[in-house]
Amino acid sequence: MEGRIQIALVGAGRIGVVHGNNILANQRFDLRYVVDAVEANAKNVASKAPNAKVLSSIDEALADPNLKAVVICTPTAQHKELIIKSLRAKKAVMCEKPISLKVEEIDECYNEAKKCGTPLLCGYQRRHDPSFRQLQEACRKGSVGTLQIVKTTSRDNPVPTLAYLKISGKIFHDCGSHDIDVCRWILGEDPVEVFAIGSAFKKEIGEMHDWDTVLISLKYPSGAIASIDLSRKAAYGYDQRIEVLGDKGMVQAMNKQPTTMILSTDEGIKSDAYCYSFPQRYDQAYALELDHFADIVTKGVEPRLSHDDARKVAIIADAAEKSAETGKPVSLKWD
Amino acid sequence: MEGRIQIALVGAGRIGVVHGNNILANQRFDLRYVVDAVEANAKNVASKAPNAKVLSSIDEALADPNLKAVVICTPTAQHKELIIKSLRAKKAVMCEKPISLKVEEIDECYNEAKKCGTPLLCGYQRRHDPSFRQLQEACRKGSVGTLQIVKTTSRDNPVPTLAYLKISGKIFHDCGSHDIDVCRWILGEDPVEVFAIGSAFKKEIGEMHDWDTVLISLKYPSGAIASIDLSRKAAYGYDQRIEVLGDKGMVQAMNKQPTTMILSTDEGIKSDAYCYSFPQRYDQAYALELDHFADIVTKGVEPRLSHDDARKVAIIADAAEKSAETGKPVSLKWD
Amino acid sequence: MEGRIQIALVGAGRIGVVHGNNILANQRFDLRYVVDAVEANAKNVASKAPNAKVLSSIDEALADPNLKAVVICTPTAQHKELIIKSLRAKKAVMCEKPISLKVEEIDECYNEAKKCGTPLLCGYQRRHDPSFRQLQEACRKGSVGTLQIVKTTSRDNPVPTLAYLKISGKIFHDCGSHDIDVCRWILGEDPVEVFAIGSAFKKEIGEMHDWDTVLISLKYPSGAIASIDLSRKAAYGYDQRIEVLGDKGMVQAMNKQPTTMILSTDEGIKSDAYCYSFPQRYDQAYALELDHFADIVTKGVEPRLSHDDARKVAIIADAAEKSAETGKPVSLKWD
Amino acid sequence: MEGRIQIALVGAGRIGVVHGNNILANQRFDLRYVVDAVEANAKNVASKAPNAKVLSSIDEALADPNLKAVVICTPTAQHKELIIKSLRAKKAVMCEKPISLKVEEIDECYNEAKKCGTPLLCGYQRRHDPSFRQLQEACRKGSVGTLQIVKTTSRDNPVPTLAYLKISGKIFHDCGSHDIDVCRWILGEDPVEVFAIGSAFKKEIGEMHDWDTVLISLKYPSGAIASIDLSRKAAYGYDQRIEVLGDKGMVQAMNKQPTTMILSTDEGIKSDAYCYSFPQRYDQAYALELDHFADIVTKGVEPRLSHDDARKVAIIADAAEKSAETGKPVSLKWD
Repeated sequence: MEGRIQIALVGAGRIGVVHGNNILANQRFDLRYVVDAVEANAKNVASKAPNAKVLSSIDEALADPNLKAVVICTPTAQHKELIIKSLRAKKAVMCEKPISLKVEEIDECYNEAKKCGTPLLCGYQRRHDPSFRQLQEACRKGSVGTLQIVKTTSRDNPVPTLAYLKISGKIFHDCGSHDIDVCRWILGEDPVEVFAIGSAFKKEIGEMHDWDTVLISLKYPSGAIASIDLSRKAAYGYDQRIEVLGDKGMVQAMNKQPTTMILSTDEGIKSDAYCYSFPQRYDQAYALELDHFADIVTKGVEPRLSHDDARKVAIIADAAEKSAETGKPVSLKWD
Repeated sequence: MEGRIQIALVGAGRIGVVHGNNILANQRFDLRYVVDAVEANAKNVASKAPNAKVLSSIDEALADPNLKAVVICTPTAQHKELIIKSLRAKKAVMCEKPISLKVEEIDECYNEAKKCGTPLLCGYQRRHDPSFRQLQEACRKGSVGTLQIVKTTSRDNPVPTLAYLKISGKIFHDCGSHDIDVCRWILGEDPVEVFAIGSAFKKEIGEMHDWDTVLISLKYPSGAIASIDLSRKAAYGYDQRIEVLGDKGMVQAMNKQPTTMILSTDEGIKSDAYCYSFPQRYDQAYALELDHFADIVTKGVEPRLSHDDARKVAIIADAAEKSAETGKPVSLKWD
Repeated sequence: MEGRIQIALVGAGRIGVVHGNNILANQRFDLRYVVDAVEANAKNVASKAPNAKVLSSIDEALADPNLKAVVICTPTAQHKELIIKSLRAKKAVMCEKPISLKVEEIDECYNEAKKCGTPLLCGYQRRHDPSFRQLQEACRKGSVGTLQIVKTTSRDNPVPTLAYLKISGKIFHDCGSHDIDVCRWILGEDPVEVFAIGSAFKKEIGEMHDWDTVLISLKYPSGAIASIDLSRKAAYGYDQRIEVLGDKGMVQAMNKQPTTMILSTDEGIKSDAYCYSFPQRYDQAYALELDHFADIVTKGVEPRLSHDDARKVAIIADAAEKSAETGKPVSLKWD
Repeated sequence: MEGRIQIALVGAGRIGVVHGNNILANQRFDLRYVVDAVEANAKNVASKAPNAKVLSSIDEALADPNLKAVVICTPTAQHKELIIKSLRAKKAVMCEKPISLKVEEIDECYNEAKKCGTPLLCGYQRRHDPSFRQLQEACRKGSVGTLQIVKTTSRDNPVPTLAYLKISGKIFHDCGSHDIDVCRWILGEDPVEVFAIGSAFKKEIGEMHDWDTVLISLKYPSGAIASIDLSRKAAYGYDQRIEVLGDKGMVQAMNKQPTTMILSTDEGIKSDAYCYSFPQRYDQAYALELDHFADIVTKGVEPRLSHDDARKVAIIADAAEKSAETGKPVSLKWD
């Protein structure tokens, strides 16, 4: 067998477990280190790996010359430091989105990657989802003609814990950034006008000055219009849809269900609630994202998400948040 | 057989033909007059009726003491005069939406109806559609819990003629008013903030200072948010959907297809494009609306759409149009 | 208005009401007589008609020289006599299926029609259903290539009354004949081998030497295979489906639902049970069948169901019943 | 990390590759040997494994005392010898279905397993498919009441090679055995009457005295009826469905599609063709089957498919084949 990519997982919380399992299932990787300040988290992932060492800090891993890559799944606040350190140690980096809530820090990380000649992949997993990719390709190749309306729906399930919500960066950055990225990816242009309405039906969320229910409207130079709706609670399973209207037709990516079973009784025709949450809905996307990272490391392919993509998403999410706070539309200028 | 309701159809154009056919198929009505300035239109409908007389003006019909009801399907500009005349002649009136583009004229008509003690039904047919009614009832009885997001989609097929578009009252009143009414009907409250973005992909429509692609965002006192998207062109058939998110679930009314046939080949799984246009999509709604009108005439039931409903829709449509023109949100105060 | 077809309805029971309402809604017909031994049945239909006379026997109607057509909806045992009488009085006849359970009587009726030069349409309404017609046309024009497997499902809802079951002609003729006809219509050939298995889960049905659950297998000269499943009880609504496999694909006609509403909660994704029973499921088919009858009467178009069709269905249903009784396959020879 | 199960893969052809990949992705196994007479096949799988040795015969593997388990994916003719050898070497065995075409050989293998006290799992993967499992559980717990009709559809894609077809054991054993097993599993009883019709639309298949299109009818002691349709060609993707009618409702397991994308144009509403073939359709089932095998090896859980299951499927498949050959129903007695 050819050489595997020796890799470290940094952060073994809920999304870290997802990436950890995918690393173990992907024969192109050899998981050597699992790093987490909480030892139990690190042990949980490492216990399934034949060769993984548990660490509480990344330094020992970065010192290992055989280590080629790092996957960062820590809270956002720690991203920048870990990315910079890893890049300087010449480790290819895949970091969960967002790189940072601040555009300057995003720029700093990507500039460091450029300087070091080491790849940096930001993990917006939806770009790797087979349904979304097929939809985006259909749009880009003109299957529905001129693109006119893009609508995305992102509704969480279950409601995240208050502990998570406090460090989440608020709904526009935490959830909306995915949809903002998807709209740019589909339309191939940047919005010039952003308007957002937000509500907090859950009192605790309002008290954090955050929102649980949001509608973002975007206008693009071509005349295209986008609408994003976000919610922290979809009782019927994780709800993630995209719909694009063009002058020749419409293309949609619908929700997934755990099984194809349909039960028909005098009460109606019933099938499963949608996939429970992101690990179930995006199982393929996360696995394909990791494989894309392997391609970046071993074949030098270009990351599907660029520096420009990562920074513009942050700028637009900021604008949407500002609009929701002020009640006014926000204009954006790009040059 | 019991006495039928002797009725006159005023305006025998595209929507007039729909109501004409429904009158003929409904045994509770006896079509006595078909009135249209264009004789061929009137004859077209009357030729299928055993007892209908063709008229070029409404006066002879209104003078007939046996005539009990009038259905008005003329261009909007003629509504007010015909309604007032008919009410004064003690004929129950069903008038296609909108009564008028001007709130004062709507008030005038309803006030006259009140004064005359004669019923006036404004034809927002979606309130009679079985799928939409079932959805609205589910929302009102709490099947999805607290209502948080309402999304409606109304996309025309085929693109109306430029001749029609010129007298249509523009997209916010012509199309959007239906959706604005639906949102109020579902939520049971009036919006306090309206923001709209509009584009004109079709040059001729832009030149009329109208739009063919629109997104309206509404905020309600309860915190609920509504999103309406409108388009003059849905290449895949008339697209009319409603979706409501509540904290306990989601309810949707989907599009209808002419047949249930599915063709599966190596090219994919394919079914019919959606119902071609409004007469096909709302065939049941129009028939049930007419039957509701029969109930109003013979049983004195309350019209499903009130004076208040008709006037508020006009006010909100105005606000949305103004927002699209100015690029700013419009606040609404109700007392 | 042009002359309507003066028509008599004979038999105003459950299916008679369906045809009666369609006659009233179709402007091409003028309902003049409603005949039923049970006066209340006749009055029920006639009360909605402006010009209909209630009769307890057909003779007065047949004596009316202006009467052009008769729709027969009586129990099967009375069909032959009424058909022959009507044909001899030069009235075009539409008769509910089956003309008779006996092939010789079917022949007698059609021979009389030929002799009189008066049209006779046997009412297998599925041939007029838009979904089934589109499916059959797709099959005949080669959309799925060489036809290999036809599967039909016909499951009743609600379970008919024992009174009805006693005069129904048993499940193979009452229900199965529709499916047998559909298979011939799609395949364009006659089966050479028939095998049937039957069960009676409902004790009372077994005691009548009838079955409530049946599977019929048919083999055709081309090598095509058909499978028909029948049940007297589909708790989830009237279940009527067709599926055809060809070497290039598959075509299916699925069930219909009363509304397009979907309710999604933590219990799953739920929509309406299927259309309640035959009047709901085949509303369009019955209306189109009647319109086809109007075309036969006024334009001389050929009935969609021929003498040959009607008699062969009876022969095949007999064979299936015999197979279920004996446990052996039955071979059929056609020349 | 706890000790992994050291395992050998015997047979690295098309299904061997499926199991090989699942072994590599499952952290509970450590793939030590890949055995195939065709070295390239063995190398293909082994190249992705960190510790796997390529062998041309099983003996060296069986001599390894650390090896605990064997997965057999060779042509059916070699199953018996390999199973017996492996069991005697105290290796737990998972063998692709069927163990053998001959009931006596099946008995021999299971008897040896019993004698050796070593587990033997026969790989009918559908029993591990999440949709089918959920359907079977719904049936067994009474969600649709008394079970009356079971219908399964198994249509291959693509048409297997003639080389494969020659060693396949013919369609009743190769394909039908899965469906026969599924019917028994759902109904919990054995059929007493079997009737089958077969056609060969493809000339080469007829020349092998095999069939490509088959309909099997089965009757069970409870009165339940089953219908199985098989085809070697489903142009629209691998078609694998189950439908069960009970007196309280119906439950179905539908096909899977690679993505959830829907493209709507004036040509209709289109989604992906179904999953291409068995590796795509049953990806979860094969992975879960392997995990079940790990549970058998490490936790001593009972194999989901018993000796009785394996042998009865063979008996029923034989009866169906005999019926298709003779044109007569075959009765079965069980004691």
